[in-house]
Amino acid sequence: MTESSLRALLKRIEPLDEEVMQQAQMRMDNLTKPLGSLGRLERIAIHIAGIMRQVKPRVDGKAVVVMAGDHGVVQEGVSLYPQEVTVQMVHNFIRGGAAINVLSRHGDVRLIVVDIGVSADVEPSEGLLIRKVRYGTRNFTQDPAMTRPEALQAIAIGIDIAEQLINEGAQMLALGDMGIGNTTPSSAITAVLTGRLVEEVTGRGTGLDDAQWQHKVKVIRRALQQMKPDSDDPLDVLSKIGGLEIAGLVGVAIGGALHRKPVIVDGFITSAAAGIAVALQPLIRHYLIAGHLSAEPGHRALLEWLQLEPILQLDMRLGEGTGAVLAMHIIDAACRILSEMATFQEAGVSGPAT
Amino acid sequence: MTESSLRALLKRIEPLDEEVMQQAQMRMDNLTKPLGSLGRLERIAIHIAGIMRQVKPRVDGKAVVVMAGDHGVVQEGVSLYPQEVTVQMVHNFIRGGAAINVLSRHGDVRLIVVDIGVSADVEPSEGLLIRKVRYGTRNFTQDPAMTRPEALQAIAIGIDIAEQLINEGAQMLALGDMGIGNTTPSSAITAVLTGRLVEEVTGRGTGLDDAQWQHKVKVIRRALQQMKPDSDDPLDVLSKIGGLEIAGLVGVAIGGALHRKPVIVDGFITSAAAGIAVALQPLIRHYLIAGHLSAEPGHRALLEWLQLEPILQLDMRLGEGTGAVLAMHIIDAACRILSEMATFQEAGVSGPAT
Repeated sequence: MTESSLRALLKRIEPLDEEVMQQAQMRMDNLTKPLGSLGRLERIAIHIAGIMRQVKPRVDGKAVVVMAGDHGVVQEGVSLYPQEVTVQMVHNFIRGGAAINVLSRHGDVRLIVVDIGVSADVEPSEGLLIRKVRYGTRNFTQDPAMTRPEALQAIAIGIDIAEQLINEGAQMLALGDMGIGNTTPSSAITAVLTGRLVEEVTGRGTGLDDAQWQHKVKVIRRALQQMKPDSDDPLDVLSKIGGLEIAGLVGVAIGGALHRKPVIVDGFITSAAAGIAVALQPLIRHYLIAGHLSAEPGHRALLEWLQLEPILQLDMRLGEGTGAVLAMHIIDAACRILSEMATFQEAGVSGPAT
Repeated sequence: MTESSLRALLKRIEPLDEEVMQQAQMRMDNLTKPLGSLGRLERIAIHIAGIMRQVKPRVDGKAVVVMAGDHGVVQEGVSLYPQEVTVQMVHNFIRGGAAINVLSRHGDVRLIVVDIGVSADVEPSEGLLIRKVRYGTRNFTQDPAMTRPEALQAIAIGIDIAEQLINEGAQMLALGDMGIGNTTPSSAITAVLTGRLVEEVTGRGTGLDDAQWQHKVKVIRRALQQMKPDSDDPLDVLSKIGGLEIAGLVGVAIGGALHRKPVIVDGFITSAAAGIAVALQPLIRHYLIAGHLSAEPGHRALLEWLQLEPILQLDMRLGEGTGAVLAMHIIDAACRILSEMATFQEAGVSGPAT
């Protein structure tokens, strides 16, 4: 994919359909419940009506895309876990033993795992797509994480996968990530997008202690000084200090918005991807729903910048799409309220005294 | 049921099983995820392991009991909706058009509706139990809402229904309510249990304006002055200023705790019932999980008094068990994490550097 073909695609993304949202709101207000009494569920349903251009939207076709990639910056000692855990976890996904497997089965969500940049070779397998752009990113304290063409390639892969899933019946897409060390590029991206200090948006990842956390902050500061990512050029930010799974997820978000499907953001890493997508095309924000608020401190800053209100706050910080998939049940519930509840007239229930 | 037989039942309720909880925690810490990274989900699963005495608890058999009753105090003009909406909504439940029907179907939750005190006659029907104690409560600004024997009868009905559902396979019970005017007894109960001022724990119910709200506060204050409920005698509080659906739900909570099943509390009304149950037997608190935080202001005070942390905060205030049923999906997810995820050893995944 070239930059001009990406720009052309991004121009095709449309705003929400306000008229359908008004019709959906009218229906919502006539359902057999006190006005507004389902709170956030009502707002979610109206939002999705506007995304999908349907007064009674259906989102029972659910899919989560877990993009897996490795990070050269782990050479700097920013993670407690060795890099090979990324490929080990990909195998765990394939065998069905990871948290995202359990939650996807429980929520009736189709799980697609994508090797977009794991540093080891992964055998082809059911439910796994091999779309490797390169064997992990470069160590971005020294070199750009990836080239601009590599970033574009990863975005194109994400768009393709989103389109294929939608063609196969997905009505709602969740973003998921796997990559040892990937809170580091996510903090770097968050610092650039939001303008906050590195230490404000850097957390303990999988469990760093104080000294390890200070080291991680220094590594990110050094990377930003070396790379000087241009905050006005989202592709520059993504390629210099991003990750391959993050770039792939940017593509999934673009693909969802292009085809008017809700895209459910998970935690910190997928929100960094969502941030790059919104920086590329601000209208994409309207297609995003924040599944949950992660315990990673940078996540709150990123969601504020994205102007997204998380559905769940369960102190989770696992990634893999786990928070997004849990939230999908609630989003689906909201849409079913709009389509399946009886109106006062249909049910013969008296309204309030006026 | 006599008071002494109730006391004998309450004595049979046991504390949580700490040993099983420790075993469950050990298993949780060996699953393929960073330590503690599933946050609240982990704590829920451990809690339920302790309730059910199972290291891998299963809660896929779910039921919600919606108790419906009317309130004499609506004569004082405390609700926007006419009293006949209670029976109209019972018909709506039977025909499947209410919010709780939609959410129960979506969450694979068995729905049981109980006429425990509707002021009109309801035809027997599939999924409806007729267990009418009386045609609505008395107006408790003038007379006790019900007699002490009537309160005991309603509690016994709730215990029986809980036991029957558990015998038929329910592993987790949600509390639901329907009753025009029932935020008024709930606020009265909350004021007595928590010692807070009436105006702190009285909300706008289905949508009162300022003047209507002030009137509701005055009605509740007058009732408390007239009835003088004894805060050291939970049955006195329940019978003087409670409701029949609230009394029935006290019984469901007792039945769940007796049989070591998690009881999922919904919003303000069901929490008032939970409060009476805990006042009767403090150990019951350990069997309760707060599904959500309602937008009704008294709910927060009541949950603090109950020392329960809500799972969802979605600005809902509908009742019917809607928040509890939505939360059941997350509680079930938490238990599945504990039983279905692979350990590091099983999956061949490296642990953190130590």
